[in-house]
Amino acid sequence: MDAEIIAVGSELLTPDHQDTNSLYLTGKLNEVGIEVRFKTIVGDDRERLATVLRSALGRSPLIILTGGLGPTEDDLNRAVVAEVLGRPLVEVPEILERIRARFALLGRPMSENNARQALIPQGAAWLENQNGTAPGIWLEHNHATLILLPGPPHEMAPIFDSQCLPRLERLSAGERIQTRVIKVAGLPESEVDRRLAPIYQRYQNPTTTILATPGGIEVHFRARAATAQQAEALAGLLADQAEAELGEHVFSSRGESLEEVVGMYLVMKQKTLATAESCTGGLLSERLTRVPGSSNFYLGGAVCYSNELKTSLAGVSPAILEAHGAVSKPVAQALAEGIRRRASASIGLGITGIAGPGGGTNEKPVGLTFIALADERGTEIREFRFPGDRQRVRWLASQFALEMLRRRARGRSKL
Amino acid sequence: MDAEIIAVGSELLTPDHQDTNSLYLTGKLNEVGIEVRFKTIVGDDRERLATVLRSALGRSPLIILTGGLGPTEDDLNRAVVAEVLGRPLVEVPEILERIRARFALLGRPMSENNARQALIPQGAAWLENQNGTAPGIWLEHNHATLILLPGPPHEMAPIFDSQCLPRLERLSAGERIQTRVIKVAGLPESEVDRRLAPIYQRYQNPTTTILATPGGIEVHFRARAATAQQAEALAGLLADQAEAELGEHVFSSRGESLEEVVGMYLVMKQKTLATAESCTGGLLSERLTRVPGSSNFYLGGAVCYSNELKTSLAGVSPAILEAHGAVSKPVAQALAEGIRRRASASIGLGITGIAGPGGGTNEKPVGLTFIALADERGTEIREFRFPGDRQRVRWLASQFALEMLRRRARGRSKL
Repeated sequence: MDAEIIAVGSELLTPDHQDTNSLYLTGKLNEVGIEVRFKTIVGDDRERLATVLRSALGRSPLIILTGGLGPTEDDLNRAVVAEVLGRPLVEVPEILERIRARFALLGRPMSENNARQALIPQGAAWLENQNGTAPGIWLEHNHATLILLPGPPHEMAPIFDSQCLPRLERLSAGERIQTRVIKVAGLPESEVDRRLAPIYQRYQNPTTTILATPGGIEVHFRARAATAQQAEALAGLLADQAEAELGEHVFSSRGESLEEVVGMYLVMKQKTLATAESCTGGLLSERLTRVPGSSNFYLGGAVCYSNELKTSLAGVSPAILEAHGAVSKPVAQALAEGIRRRASASIGLGITGIAGPGGGTNEKPVGLTFIALADERGTEIREFRFPGDRQRVRWLASQFALEMLRRRARGRSKL
Repeated sequence: MDAEIIAVGSELLTPDHQDTNSLYLTGKLNEVGIEVRFKTIVGDDRERLATVLRSALGRSPLIILTGGLGPTEDDLNRAVVAEVLGRPLVEVPEILERIRARFALLGRPMSENNARQALIPQGAAWLENQNGTAPGIWLEHNHATLILLPGPPHEMAPIFDSQCLPRLERLSAGERIQTRVIKVAGLPESEVDRRLAPIYQRYQNPTTTILATPGGIEVHFRARAATAQQAEALAGLLADQAEAELGEHVFSSRGESLEEVVGMYLVMKQKTLATAESCTGGLLSERLTRVPGSSNFYLGGAVCYSNELKTSLAGVSPAILEAHGAVSKPVAQALAEGIRRRASASIGLGITGIAGPGGGTNEKPVGLTFIALADERGTEIREFRFPGDRQRVRWLASQFALEMLRRRARGRSKL
């Protein structure tokens, strides 16, 4: 079964907004063997939306619309779908009740406008939304299935996963698609391609895509087969060969993030971590604590933007700051060792650098960053010169700090 | 003049690839007064691409296709455009010559396939590509203008800027588009719409879009006028009325982020800030330090995931932790007051909560969060029950912490 996704919203036709829902949906649809053949983005405009919907009905057995279910006047999806299909909108008392209850729970009066969200085209089923007022809508019309989902991703995704995907899996007759993702650190994209091409070129299925992302080079192996297990085995066959070729540069074999991998190693080795960050301003600790259960390996740390806090929170001596400046090897070392001691952690990690845009000099330009890792065997300090703007320098600093942690934590020798 | 963008490429229909060219093109088109009304993404498939192109020809005076101009078999744009318009493809010797020269320069033999890139539909003009082998194509057909551009952004953008934009500026009736964005905190989307509808409904131009984003409700006023200045004035006129209506709920008049606004107020009032975060794990400090120059108001803080660090970094007494538990009002207060004292900051902010997925109980469920703000006038503590998953709870906690800071910092009374 082929699918078509229509993302509705005038903001998605401006230079500042991207339709990201369709990426999520595509991934989930692929899992149950459904390919996306068209994606269309159209504004909050009755006539244009109707045009797009008619085209879709003429060519796609499964049509998913996102957005346009809000309470405001320019949220038109319910009305346009009803009009194009020639079905009246009917009010569902149970939805209205739920919307009222939701507002009551939040202690706010329900706006008149929200009553619109209780309307669905005749003959449709509604899909409960636990994270917002707009329910989703499921509709069969002639030989097509239409699904309407709210635009906010945290509302769209749970509705789709729990109430659409199982039904679609039953509807989709045939093949299954599985993708294995491996992630690579420390090699450029072209080098990854050069080394993997002789392997992946031998296969039409799986297809291989190499992708540069902020979190590292990703290699996607996408396989089709009669069952999910077979597709997975096929993708795995190629992924294993690729891993063997790239060796320790592969940090993730199953799509895990770098921070998840670091956490896994630390828990496995029963080690704890504390951090002292300057230029990354908490980004490293934020990334570490994205991982559920991070309290099992991460104790916490200091964000010491000012020199005073480098001293009072991480125990960096004012003499070192005075002698070498805040962005220096000795300060990185003192941060790592200081926070390790202060937190009684197995590992201390310190970062200091110049993220920009201001603060750079000829001698210490924007991008200059020192990262130190201290454990009971001693302290490793590395110097980096990261390219790019403030956010990119900060991201790269956190990325290389995690990579230093990974390499130290995976080593067979004791930490 | 309205435009439609068609991005061609099977990889753009996978979960991992986004069409970003269209954002670039939209920005440039808007500058010369052209609105994008439809965006379509379609794979490297002859029949599907033809379908999409026919729909576009039926509704859009300007159609821009990106991708599908490469040398390989699945690059179909030239052939499909020629077929749909009923014009034969003709070889342009000058293009062929340039492709040959390019290969010679790189010291590589030209592949047979590349000769295809010298074909253009009869009657079309070709657009020189200085960064690759595929030239762009400009084509007028009946009342429509078609532009074919190569997919790689570093090839697409220079061709468009130097050879398309000046012509489009002459073709477009001469209007210009400008957008003003205001951002709103503390009101739901439906309430913002209810209050603004009487104002924006009086205008066809600017058009108004209300948008729920993780960073707050955004209201976009998008105006068209003969000159950029006039368009800006028009957008500003409506934005000012909207601001007057929404009052202090508007935290940003020019698209600034909440963290930028907080920083601005703190610098203006010469106040400094320190934070002590538990469940947000550094997200608040990371957001504050995204702002360039944040060292002018942000001293730093503690990420105290473990109870021991709550004590050693933020001075929370073990007795309070013991008596009330880590997620409690008294601990939030102690975090805020402790870090304020430790950092000698004007303001201390403390956050403690349960982000999930584990750690919740009946009495203290996932989402329960306490945020405390301490300054020389005393300490304000608020209790929240945030909905959603781990990342959302963390985001909302950081968002409400910033909003508490904004409200305190903007007050006329001294902090």
